[in-house]
Amino acid sequence: MKMRIDAFAVMNIIGLLAFALVGTVKAIDADLDLLGAAILGVVTALGGGTTRDLLVNQVPNSLQSSTDVTIALVGIVLAVVGVHFIDELVDHNAVVVSDAVGLSAFATTGALIGHSNGVSPFGIIVLAMATGVGGGVYADILLRRIPFVLKEDFYATCTIIGGGSFWIFLSTGADSQTGAVACALTVFTVRLIAVHQEWNLPKPSHVTDI
Amino acid sequence: MKMRIDAFAVMNIIGLLAFALVGTVKAIDADLDLLGAAILGVVTALGGGTTRDLLVNQVPNSLQSSTDVTIALVGIVLAVVGVHFIDELVDHNAVVVSDAVGLSAFATTGALIGHSNGVSPFGIIVLAMATGVGGGVYADILLRRIPFVLKEDFYATCTIIGGGSFWIFLSTGADSQTGAVACALTVFTVRLIAVHQEWNLPKPSHVTDI
Amino acid sequence: MKMRIDAFAVMNIIGLLAFALVGTVKAIDADLDLLGAAILGVVTALGGGTTRDLLVNQVPNSLQSSTDVTIALVGIVLAVVGVHFIDELVDHNAVVVSDAVGLSAFATTGALIGHSNGVSPFGIIVLAMATGVGGGVYADILLRRIPFVLKEDFYATCTIIGGGSFWIFLSTGADSQTGAVACALTVFTVRLIAVHQEWNLPKPSHVTDI
Repeated sequence: MKMRIDAFAVMNIIGLLAFALVGTVKAIDADLDLLGAAILGVVTALGGGTTRDLLVNQVPNSLQSSTDVTIALVGIVLAVVGVHFIDELVDHNAVVVSDAVGLSAFATTGALIGHSNGVSPFGIIVLAMATGVGGGVYADILLRRIPFVLKEDFYATCTIIGGGSFWIFLSTGADSQTGAVACALTVFTVRLIAVHQEWNLPKPSHVTDI
Repeated sequence: MKMRIDAFAVMNIIGLLAFALVGTVKAIDADLDLLGAAILGVVTALGGGTTRDLLVNQVPNSLQSSTDVTIALVGIVLAVVGVHFIDELVDHNAVVVSDAVGLSAFATTGALIGHSNGVSPFGIIVLAMATGVGGGVYADILLRRIPFVLKEDFYATCTIIGGGSFWIFLSTGADSQTGAVACALTVFTVRLIAVHQEWNLPKPSHVTDI
Repeated sequence: MKMRIDAFAVMNIIGLLAFALVGTVKAIDADLDLLGAAILGVVTALGGGTTRDLLVNQVPNSLQSSTDVTIALVGIVLAVVGVHFIDELVDHNAVVVSDAVGLSAFATTGALIGHSNGVSPFGIIVLAMATGVGGGVYADILLRRIPFVLKEDFYATCTIIGGGSFWIFLSTGADSQTGAVACALTVFTVRLIAVHQEWNLPKPSHVTDI
């Protein structure tokens, strides 16, 4: 799949950098060695896209092209160097915004590839979500944590809304490029609002108390 | 693969409902938010079948058809609502029997799809087991637990015996429909007996003490 | 892929035995039941190769041929019996060397299959590593542990160096058989030296202190 939209390629690069950085910092905080930290960075950055490709039965792009892993390695180096200079690297505004850019870019490739493989509406949402949050989930599993997307934060939800908006646009007759723009803008906007407003989903055990 | 046996389609629906319900209740007990609970429900219901399809190199049926996920969503809603009215929802007899029905239906699709893809006898057993218990294993991993099928219960064992009986029937000349009936009956019967008798497998550390 | 090198087939058998034994002993130590222990043994022995095949979009060899699982079962039986006679079975020299032989053989099949599927240099290294350490990582995840390859030991690193040497040989014009021999020897030698010298990678949090 060729991306004609240059903005999209830039978003993808920002996302790979941010995801690799966040994953590496997580690993350093968990006291992993250099290799472990690098693996966590690579997994966080490339895990979602690899899952997306495997789910639609393709040899993962991450194994065929060297571009993405090279970008991820830059993010890993930034993390290893930066973690000694900036205390709360992953909470830095630049990282939070870059992470939202990445979530948005990744979810959109998931929706696009799902669409071009003819999956169901649910399949589009799953691929948007898996591409966006897959890497972070694997990183948390490797660190023996309950994936943060399950416990807190309006994070995976953004990709679900984004995948849903992609599908709504296409079922109203828009082409996939328009749907992609809608998906990317939706994920990014909802994510930033969620961070700013500290949104959280209700817990089912309290639902009936409301 | 078209299922001609209507009984089988009904079993599959019961299984999807029961698995989604059990997974969602588990997630609620673990204090996940609404999305987390729904994801756990979907993963428990669809994880096994998705694994089965990926193992034989097909785009997962769960991403192509909207039927199964819709059924799973019903199970999730039942869990979210029911958990406030019934204390020990997952231990309720109706849930235990439905779960056994699902285990039986899922294991049987695994054996059938393995057979139609020409895998080895071991492959048939693995696919029966992965389809039957895969969803529950993923749910436990996401909840940071040792998968219950590894620690206790005569659960995965039922699918192994079922897959084995499928293979025995076919290697004695029966057709795959007969093998499927044998597999389904075996898994269901063995599972119910195991629950009733509270069977557990011996632990290797005590084997030589016997 | 036919292996013409008999030495390689022997290495593969030794590796399957060692990996199955190590995985089973781990499971027994974690108090799993007989089935759980057997599953851990099978997963440790066959998990890496299965991952390798899925990543290049093939139905896993482990599901098509009965040879490898039969060898793994022998390793599992050895573990269940041996664990009662030898206290520190997994630290026994014979097991450590056999494990290194397996790591070497598995990493090499990963590099070879990556090469024949035309993946990138990074893809070759990922496939060498995934084939070598995948089984152990899954076993640790099932036992709810941070995978040991991430926390300590010069283990996964050996497969990375091996995959890298495979790629260097091929990019200098060597054929894949020569590259395979180079990869196998590199992984085995580096692994044994690492065990003997108790090598560990530095942790990023201490990197700048050096």
